[in-house]
Amino acid sequence: MASTTPSSSSSSSKLCFNSDCKDFKSDRPKKGWRLRTGDLAQLCDRCGSAFEEGRFCDIFHANASGWRNCETCRKRIHCGCIVSSNTFVLLDPGGIECFTCARKNIILVGFSIVVRKCVPLPPLSGLEPSCNV
Amino acid sequence: MASTTPSSSSSSSKLCFNSDCKDFKSDRPKKGWRLRTGDLAQLCDRCGSAFEEGRFCDIFHANASGWRNCETCRKRIHCGCIVSSNTFVLLDPGGIECFTCARKNIILVGFSIVVRKCVPLPPLSGLEPSCNV
Repeated sequence: MASTTPSSSSSSSKLCFNSDCKDFKSDRPKKGWRLRTGDLAQLCDRCGSAFEEGRFCDIFHANASGWRNCETCRKRIHCGCIVSSNTFVLLDPGGIECFTCARKNIILVGFSIVVRKCVPLPPLSGLEPSCNV
Repeated sequence: MASTTPSSSSSSSKLCFNSDCKDFKSDRPKKGWRLRTGDLAQLCDRCGSAFEEGRFCDIFHANASGWRNCETCRKRIHCGCIVSSNTFVLLDPGGIECFTCARKNIILVGFSIVVRKCVPLPPLSGLEPSCNV
């Protein structure tokens, strides 16, 4: 997004990490996905915002292969892509679930365990169920 | 693959874990992919052999979504699938590389580091290059 044109020797390091983007990073680049070195990809403002909003793959990888649907809500997720690798979980029988649905299910399972651990008491005993949690 | 028909109460636990398969496991089920519990999926002989030979997704998920090509050798790999999740690496700019190609590259990078660490000596010095590794 920067408007300056740096010399060719340093221009590559100032380019947005997104290989589909020719913009330059700002002086304070936006942070993207975690690279295999452990560092975070440095992005221009536009790509960084797309990443923050979870729209990076929708915008830049729309025509790439690897898209699958969440088995619960059918949301499209780009699989086999480092950008979206933390947005879903792999299901035991195959397929994926988006992180939002997976988190809901974890909470529901957790709640179910709490309910099952509650010891039922006689009605009108004046006591709340005692929970062994 | 077993020919016996167990009672309905116990039949589900004797079925192959592959939901696309109606066969029963043998008394010593074949081991498949690692489930989220940490256990290994238990498979019938046919599905277990397909898994061992790296053909499970080719056979059972051929028409599923999520297939991508290795960026180096173009081999097809099923992404977003727990069965194939250990057969590729995610590349920093996006895309995937099959484990075979990724391993070759790691070896090549390692070899390059070794070569660069060798200290060049004057020609005809009668000494081998000394390596600082």
